[in-house]
Formats: sequence, C-alpha cells, structure tokens
Amino acid sequence: MATETGLNVAVVGATGAVGQQMLRTLEQRNFPISKLTLLSSKRSAGKKLTYKGEEIVIQEATPDSFEGVQLALFSAGGSISKALAPEAVKRGAIVVDNTSAYRMDPEVPLVVPEVNEEELRNHKGIIANPNCSTIQMVVALEPIRKKYGMKKVIVSTYQAVSGAGANAIKEMEEQTSAILDGKEFTPEILPCGSDEKHYQIAFNAIPQIDKFQDNGFTFEEMKMINETKKIMNMPELQVAATCVRIPVETGHSESLFIEVENSGLTVSEMKSMLSEAPGVVLEDDPENQIYPMAVNCVNKNDVFVGRIRQDLDNEKGFHLWVVSDNLLKGAAWNSVQISESLVKLGLLK
Amino acid sequence: MATETGLNVAVVGATGAVGQQMLRTLEQRNFPISKLTLLSSKRSAGKKLTYKGEEIVIQEATPDSFEGVQLALFSAGGSISKALAPEAVKRGAIVVDNTSAYRMDPEVPLVVPEVNEEELRNHKGIIANPNCSTIQMVVALEPIRKKYGMKKVIVSTYQAVSGAGANAIKEMEEQTSAILDGKEFTPEILPCGSDEKHYQIAFNAIPQIDKFQDNGFTFEEMKMINETKKIMNMPELQVAATCVRIPVETGHSESLFIEVENSGLTVSEMKSMLSEAPGVVLEDDPENQIYPMAVNCVNKNDVFVGRIRQDLDNEKGFHLWVVSDNLLKGAAWNSVQISESLVKLGLLK
Repeated sequence: MATETGLNVAVVGATGAVGQQMLRTLEQRNFPISKLTLLSSKRSAGKKLTYKGEEIVIQEATPDSFEGVQLALFSAGGSISKALAPEAVKRGAIVVDNTSAYRMDPEVPLVVPEVNEEELRNHKGIIANPNCSTIQMVVALEPIRKKYGMKKVIVSTYQAVSGAGANAIKEMEEQTSAILDGKEFTPEILPCGSDEKHYQIAFNAIPQIDKFQDNGFTFEEMKMINETKKIMNMPELQVAATCVRIPVETGHSESLFIEVENSGLTVSEMKSMLSEAPGVVLEDDPENQIYPMAVNCVNKNDVFVGRIRQDLDNEKGFHLWVVSDNLLKGAAWNSVQISESLVKLGLLK
Repeated sequence: MATETGLNVAVVGATGAVGQQMLRTLEQRNFPISKLTLLSSKRSAGKKLTYKGEEIVIQEATPDSFEGVQLALFSAGGSISKALAPEAVKRGAIVVDNTSAYRMDPEVPLVVPEVNEEELRNHKGIIANPNCSTIQMVVALEPIRKKYGMKKVIVSTYQAVSGAGANAIKEMEEQTSAILDGKEFTPEILPCGSDEKHYQIAFNAIPQIDKFQDNGFTFEEMKMINETKKIMNMPELQVAATCVRIPVETGHSESLFIEVENSGLTVSEMKSMLSEAPGVVLEDDPENQIYPMAVNCVNKNDVFVGRIRQDLDNEKGFHLWVVSDNLLKGAAWNSVQISESLVKLGLLK
C-alpha cells in the first residue's frame, strides 16, 4: 500500500497487542512501504485491519506468504517464528523477530538501536528484538556504561499486564469489576498462559512472569539476565532480576541498583548524561514530585528515567527508576526502529 | 470490659485502618483487659465501636484520658503521639506507639519481638512499633543473620494502599471504577496526603511513599534504612530501599537482595532455617507455582517468604520475595505482640 518507492513488508501476528501497535508505529513513522501484507494464524485470517486509511484483509501465514517480501516483522509467538522465519529468509526477506525464539542464537544479532545498532551489519537474515523489560533497562544503562563502565545490575520489575497479551488485559478488567461488585471470578490466564495454575492479578502482585527454570529464576528473569549481557556485549556483567506482574495495563516500571566500574560518577553528572542520551527522557525532580510513572508513558516511544540516587554505602552504587511503554519501546517501536536502522545502514533496499 | 483480672488499656486512633485491626487483634488474642478505653480526635469522638460484643463510645483523647491506664496503644498520627504519649507515660502508662514520632529516639526501644524482644527491658515508658515495610523485612532477615551474618540489603517494595489509610483505599476504589466506566476523576490523597501533588494510583505504580528528603530518598525509604539498622542493632549494615505504591488494597510485597557475611549458605539451608523461624511461613515451591502473594496474606499475622534464589554471580548473595499484611504484622499485630511480650517479661502488670 501507500508509497510507490518503498519496501515490500509483511507483519506476522498483526491482530495481537504488539502487532496492532506495530501497524500504528509504521504509520506514524511513515515507514517507506510499497506493499503491506498482514499475516496471522488461520484463526484470525479473513479479519480486516486499517493501515493509512486502507483496509487490508489478513491472510493466513504460510511459507509462500513471504514470496517477494523484503522485510518481515514477526510477533506471533515463538513457535510461529521458529516455523516461518527461516522460510521468510529463504525467500529473501530480512526478519525482525519480536519473540524469544532466536534471541540467544549466537548467529542472530539482538538489537536495541541506541545500544548496538552496528550489530545489524552481522545479520544472517534474522534479527531479534529483545524482551520488553530488557530493552528499556539497557537504553538507560548504556550512556552510563559508556563513560563509567558497568559491574553489577540488580533489577526488580513492576510489569504491566499488556505484556501478556490482549486477553490478559481483558482478564484484569473483568476481575477488577468483579471484585468491586463483590462477584466471583476464576483466573484463567495470568501469571502465564502456558503454566498450570492461574492467579488473581487485580489488586495483587504476582512474582512470576513466564515459567520457572531449574535454578529458581523464571524464564523472564533469565531473559533479562542473558539478553542484557548479549546486547551490551558484556558476558562478565553481573545481572540479577526479579520479575513481578502488577495490575497496570501498559507501562513497565523497573527499580534498578547498578554498580559502575569507575569512581567519580555523581548524581548530577548521571542526570546530565541521561538527559542527553538517545531515547531517554529524564524525569527527576523530587522537590516537585516529578518522576516517571507507568500511566504517563503510554503511547510514547521514550524510556523515562528518574529517582536517581547515589547508594548511601557505596560511592559506585546508584539507584534508578525506569519506565517505558512495553508495547512500544518494549516491542513495536524497537522493531520499527531496527527496520529504520536497516534502511539507514543500507542493509535493506 | 471483659476479664476481672487484666489491664487497663487505651487505644488511641481506634477508628483508623490500623486502630480497627488493633481491636480485632486484641479480641482474637484474648489479651487480658479489665478496662478498655477508645480514644480519638475530637472529630471521631462520640462514635461507637464494638469489642467482644460490647459497644464502647469513643472519647476525645486528652492528657487526663490516661489516668489509671497501664497500656496505651497509639496509632493516630505522629503529632498526636508527640503531644499525648508523654502525658500517658507521666500518668504511669506504658505506650506502644505505631507512628514514626519516637522510632529513632535513642531512648526508645524499636521492637519486633522475633528480632529484639529483650530491648523492651530498656524502655523508659515509650516503645516504638517500626514502619510496616521494615517489620516484615527484619522478620525474614533475622534467622539468616543469626547464623550467616548480614552485610548488605537492597529492597524494592510493592506497597499496598491501606498503608496510607482508609481514605486512600476509598480513593483507589473510586478511581478504579471511574477508569473502568470511562469517567473523569481527580486524585486527592496519594502518593502522600501531606505533599503537594496527587497522582492516580489505580492501574499505576507510584515511586513515592511519604515526602522526599534532601538526599533524594523518600522518608519511607529512610525509615526502612535507619529502622532496620536500629532493630538489628547493626549500624554498619548496608541498607538501600526503593519504596513504591501499587494498586493493592492490603499486603506489602518486597523484592530483596541480601549479601551475607559468611560463606557456605545454600538455598536449601535458607529454606530450612526460614521454615522453622518464628513468625515466618515459607511458601517456596516454584515447580508448583507456590510463592507468597499479597491477596493470600490478608488477615494473617505471619510473614510469608518465597522465591529464594542464590545470586548467579555472588555465592553470598540471595534473592527473596517477602509478603505480609501491612495492617497486622506491619502494625496492629506487632503492637499487640509487643504488649504480650511486655506481659510475658513481667514489665506490665
């Protein structure tokens, strides 16, 4: 659709929470598209979505759907990516994959453009978009690491329900109404659709996102740990994560403790570095009660940072509060931003 | 009221969220009371509350209210405690104060019975009940410290709205309904009634509890830091806190990173120590998705601990998830427990 000169683009998983944000973001950024194909599972095929005022019928994703496609944005779950991303690459497309399927594959660049855009040059067809909670953290860490090094990161997350999809949002709203009305309800989705037990998210905090691993960490926590090391190219970085779902619709918040390598960093210098950093908006004025909050980040592409304090016992230790729209910088916007970087670097033409 | 042999007890702030839990707890514990006086501000005087089936008319608290009182439980705000606790002591009462007014006074024991019950012997009339978020943390830390020492604690909290009082709960419920119904609302209480700006708590996370101090930490965060050192009698302990309000009615959750002094601690030994520790309930079975959650701790006196993991980079580092009813162990139950300890130690008779 749209421009005469532009790319043949496919979006896989167009009807999901992230997929819809992907379309809106491509539209807003006026991404150069000559043809746009919307793909989904068999179940959603036949539905229609609007892009730049034109209705597009969604088709079932099959290997042949990618004939002629130059850029394929995947966001339909790991198994779809596993099955179809190689098919898209085989047919000449570059894949930007928003699932966890290829993130830790050493052949696949895992990219947050503010941090490691140049890694895109090493792609072999598939580029992975990191986990939402990882992306916003590394955007905030990178400007600090560049000048002072980074030794240790301990993060506790306050993650929004939209990260678990549109059905989880619906579940939270229905539970909330039921509780306010004094009615019964049965949790069916959260904490993790693929796990056995389901718990109330309304007016609760659930310390489980994704399934547990043998070491007691959840897969979400291990994603934050391993992806951060890979994106920052620091296998020796010490990272620990506790990931918690809270009753927020959109916007992940993170409480970070970091320890830098080098002495001399002050809070005011960190604020000054972050206020000039790409993709970061500094919101840090305690006297006027200015700090990032989930409800304020929705529909914005930036990563908001505030509550910056030096640790009271360790001059190389700092505390930060980092908030971003998990569907945008955490997913759709980072994928589109990778696509823009591919164009800018001449890797997609 | 009630028993023939028993104590002359006054509860100050009986109509508040904590005061009402105080009455229920005294009742449930069958605390030895011969006379019970309920006191409040002028505004609530004349209202009635029920204790063991008997209606008691609430009186305005004045210095003379404490004539003959042996035990006075204060929970009506710092300024009331500042004004009236010394008056109660002057008249022979022992005061258990649930506000922050006297907590850091070196003359005043700050007591969590599981940790430092013996400190009660040093009281000079006033005993302070610690901050809710501090209490549940030190109950979980103490059994570990006893055997392995404690070097560093980094905590991020997920605090319930009831900690800000009954009006804050009402505000959260009204905001939540308004959002679900697509209606307008104006935040008026949270994050902190005494501060200037007020923010939406429904479907949000607010990284401010109490007012900001000059060092960028909030007063709530400094309470956790300073009170923990005092209760554990470890001025050298490294403590850092980030305190966050989330849309939960009752039940504070805490994500803890701790570093112990001595080598050799394993996850299974920590689980075994905590499963036998006073006041602690271990809920830690990831395979069966068993971990503490706010909604499950309500109306229970215990501190629930789970998600115990060894840090992946530091063999002396551990992560824990600690949940407790902030109105009970965090306030009313700890105050009543202190009162029981006073009786047990022969300090109140």
